[in-house]
Amino acid sequence: MRKIAVLTSAAALLATAVTAAAVKPEAAIHYRQSVYTMIGWNFGPMVNMVKNKTPWDSAEFAQRAERIAFLAPQLLEGFPEGSDQGAETEAKPEIWQNMDDFKSKMSDLVRETKALAEVAKAGDEAKTREQFKKTAGACKSCHDKYRSEE
Amino acid sequence: MRKIAVLTSAAALLATAVTAAAVKPEAAIHYRQSVYTMIGWNFGPMVNMVKNKTPWDSAEFAQRAERIAFLAPQLLEGFPEGSDQGAETEAKPEIWQNMDDFKSKMSDLVRETKALAEVAKAGDEAKTREQFKKTAGACKSCHDKYRSEE
Repeated sequence: MRKIAVLTSAAALLATAVTAAAVKPEAAIHYRQSVYTMIGWNFGPMVNMVKNKTPWDSAEFAQRAERIAFLAPQLLEGFPEGSDQGAETEAKPEIWQNMDDFKSKMSDLVRETKALAEVAKAGDEAKTREQFKKTAGACKSCHDKYRSEE
Repeated sequence: MRKIAVLTSAAALLATAVTAAAVKPEAAIHYRQSVYTMIGWNFGPMVNMVKNKTPWDSAEFAQRAERIAFLAPQLLEGFPEGSDQGAETEAKPEIWQNMDDFKSKMSDLVRETKALAEVAKAGDEAKTREQFKKTAGACKSCHDKYRSEE
């Protein structure tokens, strides 16, 4: 039984190693930048509504919030070990030196985007505006620490 | 009543014009390429499983299929009028000359990716492999006609 456990564990380690080796740093960088681009694409029209530059459209806001909530949990996969370099990236090396903290900030983002999608779907504009601030705060908190300025 | 209808129609046209003007072609190109990158990122490990290069993992397959089903309907937004140029793009000008056909192919993709997510979630490997072929066929059908080879 113990032998099986050790073998299974070794197999799991091997699988992880294979997966890590299979993903080239430049591919991971390109991937994570794509997730951020999609988030930004949807975030833009929401910002315009929040700033009253465009009329409030609760259906569009809810749809874009739902998309961001779906995208946010997919970011972390784009930061494998070794992808601090390999292509142009704004991700600071500090991410991999503080991975637990980075993951915690990503969890904050996932939680806030999920809450935003829920409150936007319910259709209460005031609550949505409030939750939008919290979500933007989760973005900023991570960018301030782990994103280098262009 | 007729006057209101005309005004509403004019407002709708104006709104469309404003939206179209707000999105720069290069931003739309960058956005749609990001959606394709995310689809490809998830498609890769599925191909590896289908080709038996990696062990079949029904949970991972289902998760990636769900992501692709969520991403596919977001592609069309990246092809606004005028975004046939403005940055490097593999999208052929024929897309905007045959927009109804292009939209129809996009609908095929949305339908097949949705079916793939459902069958993968149900966990039947044989049916999932079968539906994967149909989904890949929907990708290919559009690429063959509307994507220029690099």
